[in-house]
Amino acid sequence: MQKALEGVKVLDLTQFEAGTTCTVLLAFLGADVIKVENPVGGDLGRLSFSERRDEGVDSYYFIFLNANKRSVTLDLKNKKGKEIFKDMVKKADIVVNNFTVGTMDKLGVGYDVLKEVNPKIIYASITGYGTYGPYKDYPCFDIVAQATGGLMGVTGYPENPPTKVGTGLGDSIGATNLAVGILGALYQREKTGEGQEVEVSMQDCILNTLRPVYNFYYVGGGQPIARTGNKTKMIAPWNSYKTTDGYVVIGILTNPLWENLLKVIGREDAISDPRFADPLTRGTNVEATDSLIEEWTSKRSKMEAMNYLAGKGVPCGAVLDMTELLNNPHLRERGMVSEIEHPERGKLTILASPIKLSKSEVEVGCAPLLGEHNEEVYASMIGLSKEDIAKMKEEKII
Amino acid sequence: MQKALEGVKVLDLTQFEAGTTCTVLLAFLGADVIKVENPVGGDLGRLSFSERRDEGVDSYYFIFLNANKRSVTLDLKNKKGKEIFKDMVKKADIVVNNFTVGTMDKLGVGYDVLKEVNPKIIYASITGYGTYGPYKDYPCFDIVAQATGGLMGVTGYPENPPTKVGTGLGDSIGATNLAVGILGALYQREKTGEGQEVEVSMQDCILNTLRPVYNFYYVGGGQPIARTGNKTKMIAPWNSYKTTDGYVVIGILTNPLWENLLKVIGREDAISDPRFADPLTRGTNVEATDSLIEEWTSKRSKMEAMNYLAGKGVPCGAVLDMTELLNNPHLRERGMVSEIEHPERGKLTILASPIKLSKSEVEVGCAPLLGEHNEEVYASMIGLSKEDIAKMKEEKII
Repeated sequence: MQKALEGVKVLDLTQFEAGTTCTVLLAFLGADVIKVENPVGGDLGRLSFSERRDEGVDSYYFIFLNANKRSVTLDLKNKKGKEIFKDMVKKADIVVNNFTVGTMDKLGVGYDVLKEVNPKIIYASITGYGTYGPYKDYPCFDIVAQATGGLMGVTGYPENPPTKVGTGLGDSIGATNLAVGILGALYQREKTGEGQEVEVSMQDCILNTLRPVYNFYYVGGGQPIARTGNKTKMIAPWNSYKTTDGYVVIGILTNPLWENLLKVIGREDAISDPRFADPLTRGTNVEATDSLIEEWTSKRSKMEAMNYLAGKGVPCGAVLDMTELLNNPHLRERGMVSEIEHPERGKLTILASPIKLSKSEVEVGCAPLLGEHNEEVYASMIGLSKEDIAKMKEEKII
Repeated sequence: MQKALEGVKVLDLTQFEAGTTCTVLLAFLGADVIKVENPVGGDLGRLSFSERRDEGVDSYYFIFLNANKRSVTLDLKNKKGKEIFKDMVKKADIVVNNFTVGTMDKLGVGYDVLKEVNPKIIYASITGYGTYGPYKDYPCFDIVAQATGGLMGVTGYPENPPTKVGTGLGDSIGATNLAVGILGALYQREKTGEGQEVEVSMQDCILNTLRPVYNFYYVGGGQPIARTGNKTKMIAPWNSYKTTDGYVVIGILTNPLWENLLKVIGREDAISDPRFADPLTRGTNVEATDSLIEEWTSKRSKMEAMNYLAGKGVPCGAVLDMTELLNNPHLRERGMVSEIEHPERGKLTILASPIKLSKSEVEVGCAPLLGEHNEEVYASMIGLSKEDIAKMKEEKII
């Protein structure tokens, strides 16, 4: 065995982001993730965000979220399509979907049906509000989960509205939690032989990130938490600072760290300044504290400031942009950023696995073309002949 | 077996947030998570953020991040303490830490040592930049990971600096990815009998959330991604809207959803308006699009707007504040918000597990007091007698 999830078969009905981000993690861990896609267009994320939609070329969006998976086409609305799906479920370990609540049942492939087909199946879903509770039928995109999960309310500057994170965080954090649940269920199945249902809601998972903020909430007697931009509620320095070419951030929690910072920027004179006596006092003198730092950072580039300060033990990081991330030497050395050769897009730099296992190394590969693995999967998994497969194509079932 | 991870023993050396958020998920899944804490004060998060520090009362911060765990004290700098730890490792499945790189080795309990003690041990760590790569020794708090992982660069309003998410997101998303890695390794061990090392960096895990944004980056020819507040880069409506008591967000991706919105707010007249013909055209007329919506929302409360619109199929959510979240009927019914009775804090409303497994239900419980489980753990796990334990207390090893 070379991979953590070697031999684990995942039937992946997910689309767009919330589900695909989960199954790409399972694929990175070595599971055989088989996307089961609508024969007409497949995962809607393939073309929805593609600037080459007219040519039918998969979007970067799709490629980033579906590395290391295989793809088969199958019409789940077709009666024979459903039967084929059930045949696959018999051989599979995990089924994942991010359809709206009730869609799988309507298709006739809900958990109640699939557990009869294979009692060992682990049936996982991610939705905006989960499969039960008064909001379960409310439509929910990522921005909605960021609002109703509470994250927007504590993010951003006070003069602006509550602020959304600039990526699909509800999708991403929900997906990662779903992967935890699936693997927990997989371990339980090793002991009991039984599958089960796993579900997460994006709202719950966004809220789950607010655990530390509830400290400030309760300490403040349950008053609303003010949005404070990049500052913390109480202590300083903890902020973003201008440089010649962008920003760095610096976060200092203790006096030894503060004194070290003053030394490395040549401001030992400020060590005895009573305005900077401790984190809370610096917090009440936050403008003086921040000015002292920005006076130094504003004369340097962000990477110069980061490498110099961090190299001397100051918690300082540059605000990196999308290009800088793809070329960052640290991310490159860690393999988090890697090159692939895509059949339609050519050489492309993409993101690899954020999870590193010493005995389950993973090379990031391509996202599959639509139906790329029809022949090999249908033959090896459920024993269909070339003729069977050709006939299904004719009938537009695959 | 009643829990997914029943019988799985985790030795939890984590402190503050990044590690504890991982192990609380494992505890919610039913693992026996034993915090191994410094006899003097324990996990630094217990008191660092406590407003009742002088009384030695655990912070809400600690309580939210350490539910359902047990606690023992142990001085890992003491020679006998190290031996006791190794005896525990022989009986454990997983060791998790979030110390800076090299600390575990310096303590003499790094992976090289522990894998000799127990080759089946899964040894997991979360750090700012990971255990290898050029930045590995750079200090990194959450704000630094949010900057160097690229999330700040795409979050916030263009007139403000790149904006930090208002919670410890690098900690939280890193921790969740670490849990995925640990459970992947646990499954692999079921097949091979061997443990391994698992690691994540907060920077990698923050970057991993940017997969979808890379679509816009590549489609834009590699130009920097502008920060656009709550709007998307291209289409409308996708924004926050004022109400009488705060904000709602609305996200509309397709024309059918747009037409439905217009109908339910009584603006069928705008369906034929050429400024609103499709998502991209609405995006170029974003002010007119947003005004039309805000004219309606600004006369209603946020919950009134949300319940009415979402009930009629419009993806709309209220920006909920910390109090509203704790009292939200949906989160209550899902058990995501629950009451506990804490020995020092009394009745307290906290967050429960975001992961729901049908055959591994979890009641959220208390975070342990420091050393609360010394007697039971040391007796049952490594067979120490009451006398042994009393002697260790005298020697200040526990």
